[in-house]
Amino acid sequence: MAENRIYTAALIVIGDEILSGRTHDKNIAQVASWLQVQGIRLAEVRVVPDVQETIVAAVNALRNSHDYMFTTGGIGPTHDDITVDAVAAALDVTVVVHPEARAMLERYYASIGKELTEARLRMARVPEGADLIPNRMSGAPGIKIGNIHMMAGVPHITAGMLDALTGTLEGGAPLIAETIGCWTAESEVADILREVEKAHAQCQIGSYPFFREGKVGANFVIRSTDRDELASAIDTLCDALATAGFDFTPGGI
Amino acid sequence: MAENRIYTAALIVIGDEILSGRTHDKNIAQVASWLQVQGIRLAEVRVVPDVQETIVAAVNALRNSHDYMFTTGGIGPTHDDITVDAVAAALDVTVVVHPEARAMLERYYASIGKELTEARLRMARVPEGADLIPNRMSGAPGIKIGNIHMMAGVPHITAGMLDALTGTLEGGAPLIAETIGCWTAESEVADILREVEKAHAQCQIGSYPFFREGKVGANFVIRSTDRDELASAIDTLCDALATAGFDFTPGGI
Repeated sequence: MAENRIYTAALIVIGDEILSGRTHDKNIAQVASWLQVQGIRLAEVRVVPDVQETIVAAVNALRNSHDYMFTTGGIGPTHDDITVDAVAAALDVTVVVHPEARAMLERYYASIGKELTEARLRMARVPEGADLIPNRMSGAPGIKIGNIHMMAGVPHITAGMLDALTGTLEGGAPLIAETIGCWTAESEVADILREVEKAHAQCQIGSYPFFREGKVGANFVIRSTDRDELASAIDTLCDALATAGFDFTPGGI
Repeated sequence: MAENRIYTAALIVIGDEILSGRTHDKNIAQVASWLQVQGIRLAEVRVVPDVQETIVAAVNALRNSHDYMFTTGGIGPTHDDITVDAVAAALDVTVVVHPEARAMLERYYASIGKELTEARLRMARVPEGADLIPNRMSGAPGIKIGNIHMMAGVPHITAGMLDALTGTLEGGAPLIAETIGCWTAESEVADILREVEKAHAQCQIGSYPFFREGKVGANFVIRSTDRDELASAIDTLCDALATAGFDFTPGGI
């Protein structure tokens, strides 16, 4: 693959609990950070409720426009876990019980002295043709079909599934970033940032203001897939800040 | 308005920093919780990068399909703050400097002994026809045009803008919720939950598993706009749990 091919992914976070404000999502940041390391850019996230037609619409909007698609949430044993049905409907395939998933669940529940009930067997249901994503935290696996990866909603279980996927997805040159921090209002240096970005077409510069210890400041994050371009932009920015009389902290504040 | 009219809102979180995993979003949960109190349901969230055409597409996809639309992020003074331009493009109106916003910024920067530079004046730009949302934390206001509300990305500034909007948006009967907690795997009670939900059409039941103190458990959240229906569903659930021999904790664990 060409080194400058950019791989993108979309994430669908499924669950009424996020949209009600009851649960603070942790999966967006965790999936985003993991994708960065794989050389894949998270290009869009949608948070949708436990409503099949809404999930189907999001899956169909995103699965063809990105290299990879991920979902979190809705693969458990209860009636509000409808991700598998929604993805199967989006792909127009049936839902089947995956024999290996069934065997995993049988072993898991036997190991803790429980039976594989009808509700638990729901966690072995997959869209026809799907493979499993191992889950070392509990019996129920994640599910992979085509470019779609269905993962758990509980963050530490999602983390285990991401570990299992590490290194299995083709990515591009990772986006690398360096940060310069300044104890100054970002509006003071807005012109400098704009000029530096304009002069370095292969870099993007983000400005992230903060208010700490009673003072305003900002971190400027320069991102690029090209290490030399990044270094050059950092040099230009530091020179411009120094010339204008601003103190700055390489690495960020 | 009819009491059973359901008001919905969509939120667009704008910013590369969320999609890179650098910043953990706090605005989804804060906007969601605030909307609940206003009697408005957060029906969908999209997280999009600082790319004008992507923001425009999201604005146009969501502004007509919900009663209200909110954005967070991208209204600061730097080159990567493009929310105003994107919303203006989506609405096909021009961007103008709002005289009142300009006056607010002049007063604010005078009060801290600074000048209103060209970069800072960017924060007075609005889509033509827009009103301001007061910001008591810093000089730069939020912006309201039609059903679109543009707010800051920095969570404590967003919080101040939500305060300013409190009570100004028409909502419906708020969705009320009660929680029952159980120290048991949710798969044990999946059938009970399904039956209770089926018997109470005006209630939704969510099941939220957790793993704490070395034990698995779950909270079951029943939501309804009808207080009597909610109470009846809670009674049915508690009876069913007791009959099946499960200990449970009203109010949740």
